[in-house]
Amino acid sequence: MSESKAFSIEALAERLGGSLVGDGSVSVSGVASLIDAGPTDLSFYADRRYRRQLASTKAGALVAREPLPGLTIPQIVHPDPFLALASLLDLFHPSASRSPGVHERAWVAPSARLAPDVTVLPFAYVGEEVEVGARTVIHPGVFLGRGVSVGEDSVLWPNVVIRENCRIGKRVVIHPGAVLGADGFGFARRGGKFVKIRHVGIVVIEDDVEIGANAAIDRGTLGRTLIRRGVKIDNLVHIAHNVEVGEDSAMAAQVGISGSTVIGKRVIMGGQVGLVDHLTVGDEAVLIAQSGVIGDVPGGATLSGFPARPHREVLKTVAELRGLDRLKDRLRQLEKEVRALRELAGIADGEESNEP
Amino acid sequence: MSESKAFSIEALAERLGGSLVGDGSVSVSGVASLIDAGPTDLSFYADRRYRRQLASTKAGALVAREPLPGLTIPQIVHPDPFLALASLLDLFHPSASRSPGVHERAWVAPSARLAPDVTVLPFAYVGEEVEVGARTVIHPGVFLGRGVSVGEDSVLWPNVVIRENCRIGKRVVIHPGAVLGADGFGFARRGGKFVKIRHVGIVVIEDDVEIGANAAIDRGTLGRTLIRRGVKIDNLVHIAHNVEVGEDSAMAAQVGISGSTVIGKRVIMGGQVGLVDHLTVGDEAVLIAQSGVIGDVPGGATLSGFPARPHREVLKTVAELRGLDRLKDRLRQLEKEVRALRELAGIADGEESNEP
Amino acid sequence: MSESKAFSIEALAERLGGSLVGDGSVSVSGVASLIDAGPTDLSFYADRRYRRQLASTKAGALVAREPLPGLTIPQIVHPDPFLALASLLDLFHPSASRSPGVHERAWVAPSARLAPDVTVLPFAYVGEEVEVGARTVIHPGVFLGRGVSVGEDSVLWPNVVIRENCRIGKRVVIHPGAVLGADGFGFARRGGKFVKIRHVGIVVIEDDVEIGANAAIDRGTLGRTLIRRGVKIDNLVHIAHNVEVGEDSAMAAQVGISGSTVIGKRVIMGGQVGLVDHLTVGDEAVLIAQSGVIGDVPGGATLSGFPARPHREVLKTVAELRGLDRLKDRLRQLEKEVRALRELAGIADGEESNEP
Repeated sequence: MSESKAFSIEALAERLGGSLVGDGSVSVSGVASLIDAGPTDLSFYADRRYRRQLASTKAGALVAREPLPGLTIPQIVHPDPFLALASLLDLFHPSASRSPGVHERAWVAPSARLAPDVTVLPFAYVGEEVEVGARTVIHPGVFLGRGVSVGEDSVLWPNVVIRENCRIGKRVVIHPGAVLGADGFGFARRGGKFVKIRHVGIVVIEDDVEIGANAAIDRGTLGRTLIRRGVKIDNLVHIAHNVEVGEDSAMAAQVGISGSTVIGKRVIMGGQVGLVDHLTVGDEAVLIAQSGVIGDVPGGATLSGFPARPHREVLKTVAELRGLDRLKDRLRQLEKEVRALRELAGIADGEESNEP
Repeated sequence: MSESKAFSIEALAERLGGSLVGDGSVSVSGVASLIDAGPTDLSFYADRRYRRQLASTKAGALVAREPLPGLTIPQIVHPDPFLALASLLDLFHPSASRSPGVHERAWVAPSARLAPDVTVLPFAYVGEEVEVGARTVIHPGVFLGRGVSVGEDSVLWPNVVIRENCRIGKRVVIHPGAVLGADGFGFARRGGKFVKIRHVGIVVIEDDVEIGANAAIDRGTLGRTLIRRGVKIDNLVHIAHNVEVGEDSAMAAQVGISGSTVIGKRVIMGGQVGLVDHLTVGDEAVLIAQSGVIGDVPGGATLSGFPARPHREVLKTVAELRGLDRLKDRLRQLEKEVRALRELAGIADGEESNEP
Repeated sequence: MSESKAFSIEALAERLGGSLVGDGSVSVSGVASLIDAGPTDLSFYADRRYRRQLASTKAGALVAREPLPGLTIPQIVHPDPFLALASLLDLFHPSASRSPGVHERAWVAPSARLAPDVTVLPFAYVGEEVEVGARTVIHPGVFLGRGVSVGEDSVLWPNVVIRENCRIGKRVVIHPGAVLGADGFGFARRGGKFVKIRHVGIVVIEDDVEIGANAAIDRGTLGRTLIRRGVKIDNLVHIAHNVEVGEDSAMAAQVGISGSTVIGKRVIMGGQVGLVDHLTVGDEAVLIAQSGVIGDVPGGATLSGFPARPHREVLKTVAELRGLDRLKDRLRQLEKEVRALRELAGIADGEESNEP
């Protein structure tokens, strides 16, 4: 998969804003992991867990956080190797050029408005009054319901479904199979049976959001479900009706957020976290994987467990539980000693129970 | 999105069976949340958490459970505002009328039997011997395998997959990407390797069921997986082969139910609940979000945690764990006092350990 | 659904390698559960939980692990009834024969190479330079990106998405809606905002793997995400970038595995298990349903809970927590006794607290 481009390490160090250690004239034409890299590949080292792979790598050059002593290959030292990697991958693997246009096997409603250079691939369905911004790519099997709008430079991967009237921003990436704008799970009850509450709200996705494969974001009952700028959502995440997620928050796979809960900015959620409805989570809170959150979360807090509590407390509890055995031993020892003392003092067993 | 219809509050109060407080001649033409509502919108108030939004709403009128003092706008007082909301949304947002028929870009097998007024949209696939009832809508990307039947007035949203021979009732709503009738996860073993057990059963969905986006309901190994009348299933729920779910039960997003488990009537499950296989859950049980159920559940019980226990016990345990510190302090204090008493009594430390 | 084939019990016993009890001349033409079976069906009994159904079955014959006394119908005794069932279902329900070929409503790129007897159904999209092996079936709505390869005798059910360059082995079954090769959830950060790391790796699925409905397996950042021979993956499972899963491992529905974690051979995971990134799980480990694994797992271990610990310990802790009440009672009793002793010894309350 490597491209035909080649760069000198010196040129790359300058482009990345890193400093060069070793022979800058070495040329590389690809990026690869420590294991897979060959002499014409640049690799990267950012985590001590990969020390063994570092020792045996055949890479031609390396990006690292600090100069690595004892290496003969040239190094680019960069304070954030992941950021350097992001730039390198953009450089070596630019987006494939494609010829835009609407494929004859796609279906586009007459009233849809497509900006120039939009790509619509076979079996995509673009409904009435849909608007699509410039350079956006709509893959096979995508469904855009009536009145949907999608901003420019977005990518809708295959089989993404966006129901009527939802609004998607610019530079948004939606991975295959994600569903936006399905009815929320809201029912009234009449005599023990559920009565459907029609969901007439929408979903609004702001710019620079990424949404994972087979994720589901429901439309508002009234009003909207709102995902703000820069939010990153992993695979199989569920976001219920009328939820609001603040800028630059991220949630790992299989997170579930119940109706009307409001998430702040730069909140981080590990995988499989669940939140009940109508909560507020403050800015920069961290919810450890699998947390079950049933109350409001203050900004900056780190929670875990079910019901979610401060993570430090949870770890302490786990340690204490392991200490329960010792606690019981101590209790047993005390009981023995007190029995002995009572015998010495001439108090018969059970005597006190007869007293008031 | 508001329609052009307008109604007086007096007329609406009568239609909903509510009582009128204030000026019944005020006219409204839409329903909106407290925040979004303007002077021509009716809004609703059912939860004290929205008190602040109530104070600043610009709504023209309100539905509420009890008369709200100090409000100048007219109110419709209704014992169940959610039920009233459901009716109002049906009234203000009726289903879009569509012209039924089979789109030329759909594929319908010659042996399929479609009732009058069925809608089949582009890129839907209707297999051999499929039967579809009157007025049912089949969106783009839907797959109906050989011999599937779907009752009247149902809606299959885009990219729903229903494999061969499964039977879907009347007024069933299946949200985008849901998969019904995939093979169950059942394997025999021969010499450490898995041997596939062919799944020849089906899925039966009774009337008035709703199934969420990207949910998965597997076919029976033999026999059937059965979802009874009125059951409501949220997004990303997994239901394994040969499970049976009783009438009017509901499960929130990301619930997982393992093979052959039988759920009673009017059971409620919070999000991310998991149940192991071959269990029985009694009528009207409540499983709190994230419960991990590994044993039968009696009717009416409320369970939480892993392994799931009565919720009251779980809350008590959590409180006790927080009290463990104090318990240790008391133990330490006792040890100190007993040591002093032993010294008084002239007993040396460790003496007893030499005795039988 | 029963086929017209009929077999004598004697012939079936011989074919399965089981022993015959009763009248071997009885003939059956189908396989059904104890409840559904009629006089011309063979049923099977492998689990004592089905005793009641056994008592009332109308089956014409039975497969069982041991001879069942008191039954008048003939029995095939087989040491592994599930394995026998797998063979019987293959016999009575062979795969439907289909006429291979590319449907005129599918879209296949000119540069794609399809082996003989491949089936491509309407609305499937087969991209440039894709290779598909003999007899493989590609259902409606499937997307195969540029350069994908799929081995022979595989089945891709409807709406499966496989992105560019991923490699799928022989005899692989991928259930509807599964997504392979979406970008991993990997971002660098610059000034509090996420910067996308382009994912240029692939997914490799070896032979005889099965992948559940709406599952998601992300491509490697660099290198590959690797699912080895014989692995079985249930519905709605998430597998992140650069994960590796060893031969013959199985994971139940809704499991989530974070980036770069390496799973050994014959590992079993219950439903909703979660693992954080960069872990190693040893061969034949068992992770109980809902476990939250945050550290390496030694081979052969059985873990549960969050954070996951040896299952035996978890059960002990649960028992101890139930005993906390009694522990407190004992402590209270001791305090009372010590107070009495101190009074006897003439020590005033709180006296010691003044001493060093």
